[in-house]
Amino acid sequence: MITLTTDFGQRDSYVAEMKGVILTRNPNATIIDITHCVEKFDIRTAAFMLASAAPYFPKGTVHLAVVDPGVGTERHAILVQTKQGFFVGPDNGVLMLSAKNQGIEHTYELSNPKFMLPKVSATFHGRDIFAPAAAYLDIGVKPAEFGPEVADVVMPEFARVKRGDGFLIGEILHVDGFGNIITNISQKEMAQAKAVNIKLHNISLNIAFGKTYAQTKSREAIALIGSHGFLEIALNQASAVEKFNAAAGEKIEVTLA
Amino acid sequence: MITLTTDFGQRDSYVAEMKGVILTRNPNATIIDITHCVEKFDIRTAAFMLASAAPYFPKGTVHLAVVDPGVGTERHAILVQTKQGFFVGPDNGVLMLSAKNQGIEHTYELSNPKFMLPKVSATFHGRDIFAPAAAYLDIGVKPAEFGPEVADVVMPEFARVKRGDGFLIGEILHVDGFGNIITNISQKEMAQAKAVNIKLHNISLNIAFGKTYAQTKSREAIALIGSHGFLEIALNQASAVEKFNAAAGEKIEVTLA
Amino acid sequence: MITLTTDFGQRDSYVAEMKGVILTRNPNATIIDITHCVEKFDIRTAAFMLASAAPYFPKGTVHLAVVDPGVGTERHAILVQTKQGFFVGPDNGVLMLSAKNQGIEHTYELSNPKFMLPKVSATFHGRDIFAPAAAYLDIGVKPAEFGPEVADVVMPEFARVKRGDGFLIGEILHVDGFGNIITNISQKEMAQAKAVNIKLHNISLNIAFGKTYAQTKSREAIALIGSHGFLEIALNQASAVEKFNAAAGEKIEVTLA
Repeated sequence: MITLTTDFGQRDSYVAEMKGVILTRNPNATIIDITHCVEKFDIRTAAFMLASAAPYFPKGTVHLAVVDPGVGTERHAILVQTKQGFFVGPDNGVLMLSAKNQGIEHTYELSNPKFMLPKVSATFHGRDIFAPAAAYLDIGVKPAEFGPEVADVVMPEFARVKRGDGFLIGEILHVDGFGNIITNISQKEMAQAKAVNIKLHNISLNIAFGKTYAQTKSREAIALIGSHGFLEIALNQASAVEKFNAAAGEKIEVTLA
Repeated sequence: MITLTTDFGQRDSYVAEMKGVILTRNPNATIIDITHCVEKFDIRTAAFMLASAAPYFPKGTVHLAVVDPGVGTERHAILVQTKQGFFVGPDNGVLMLSAKNQGIEHTYELSNPKFMLPKVSATFHGRDIFAPAAAYLDIGVKPAEFGPEVADVVMPEFARVKRGDGFLIGEILHVDGFGNIITNISQKEMAQAKAVNIKLHNISLNIAFGKTYAQTKSREAIALIGSHGFLEIALNQASAVEKFNAAAGEKIEVTLA
Repeated sequence: MITLTTDFGQRDSYVAEMKGVILTRNPNATIIDITHCVEKFDIRTAAFMLASAAPYFPKGTVHLAVVDPGVGTERHAILVQTKQGFFVGPDNGVLMLSAKNQGIEHTYELSNPKFMLPKVSATFHGRDIFAPAAAYLDIGVKPAEFGPEVADVVMPEFARVKRGDGFLIGEILHVDGFGNIITNISQKEMAQAKAVNIKLHNISLNIAFGKTYAQTKSREAIALIGSHGFLEIALNQASAVEKFNAAAGEKIEVTLA
């Protein structure tokens, strides 16, 4: 099984070209679109979409993500092997939020031309490098055959949570359609937390840490682990982002108790 | 085979999460999107889209539809077994237009936790209840295993046609991109009709009942059974909705002759 | 394998109806969307999208394209057999750019009612004629069974390149999101070219003929064969269409040296 996450949109033939490349090499592949409507070059949102959907796919799924402002430059093409599956895409952080959540085992460079299209364009590695890599991985080619293991990969700010003595510093990943503020702090990192104090724009917010929106009064704030597995701040039946005026990328500090 | 109809849009990962849940339980499922671009909470349009597409799918297809303003409240999750296949979704009417057209045999509550995700969220039953139900139905789990049979289901206004002595009262389901006015009155209900008199806003319209747009003069009105199987009012090469100024939800009365 | 290219959009159930028709007749079909977001009736752009994606699909793929302003008139429904696969759609040119690139072998009329829906509507041949034809072709029905061979098909302006003594006259097919000007002149026709002189709006442009955007200085023009296999005019890191003020449909003359 192969999933696709890109910023290619739905008007052009780019996504279909990738699917054609995959199916030519792997005619039985099941290909599932996560989204192709990420804003051009918005690596953080693509990473969040991938991290939200990946936990619901079977073990061994190959996740291909291409939001690639650096295509044609020196940035590496990589394959990340995790405890749950595989991630294929540019080494710019788009894969790492989800890969980290699954537990990274090995990272390889995609440098073996045997698993690329015969002619690799400078502008469309999604089709020429990542699509064939996903196709071959899915039919059982061993990760180490794609290229040498790499030690250093780009770990973006939004995939890092700083842990201090009794506090965490993360950032806002996404604001969803209901106005919920979703952070990059995962369920695992909140495991011991009973109550939280959240600082946003250096203002301390007194917010209960609960389980469901309905636990709090109408229009009152609650912090909880959302269905995607990350800490979020929500208002019961209202928009948290309107009340707290926050945006993706902002820092957030959580004091655990 | 499983079809999906939702108001989730294409920017977010929600639809992919549902597909991951289905394919984890049923790796050979064929999943077809009907549409995910219904306006948020527009149950009537989702019901119409599903009713338009369902007749073209093979016997035994499982149709999953989620437009679910009442998620997290007391509304039931249901499974409707018809003469042609299965419908899975919230008990708010979204399934019923299409299910009624196919001939309803049994309706069950989806209450057996064995066929849900281990953790059911309060906000996303599409993924946590309906997707696994569709997956299990498609691999042959018997409808009665999902929960008790239910007698009363929500039958929305738009799925009801009142039949009097020589007349029918229905409503406008949808206005399509060509300006055709599509009603909820089905081919079956019009079976005996030779000529019709249509009342809209209490104004009696003298409209021929025919077979094709081309049967009438340019810009002249005709009533016919459209390709989705419902009575519609159209103008040959012009917009009926502009001429008659009608909107989805309005009552329409048809006198049969 | 079957690909779909239409102007039906993603809000309505039309594409799903076609897929239901295909899967009812051919339950194992792999169906891939190229795009459904072509502007209504824009045959040229649909043809370009299809021609861009088709080369990446396996031999034997059936490509179905429906942009069909003439549905219900006398225009033929056709099946084109090429060296690489099959094309199914209206005889209005939408198939021909791609079919020509693959090498046309035979063209048949789709007139055998055995391979249509029992009731063919006047408005939706995509579902009633083209979808079943694609389904049956994909399971091995011989092209000649669909109808008589036809000699004359509509070859649109955008699929013709005039070749003179040392020059070519083509037209602009498409302007992409980066502002690159893509012509209908294919790689094959440029095979012997070492240098080119391009005339646009009767103005002679002195443009290098190269291999990659990076071969030229920033904001300087280059002519090259793009990843879709057609001659394009690009600026390195800037928009060619802004500089040269060109639009799809305009003539372009190329002098070869």
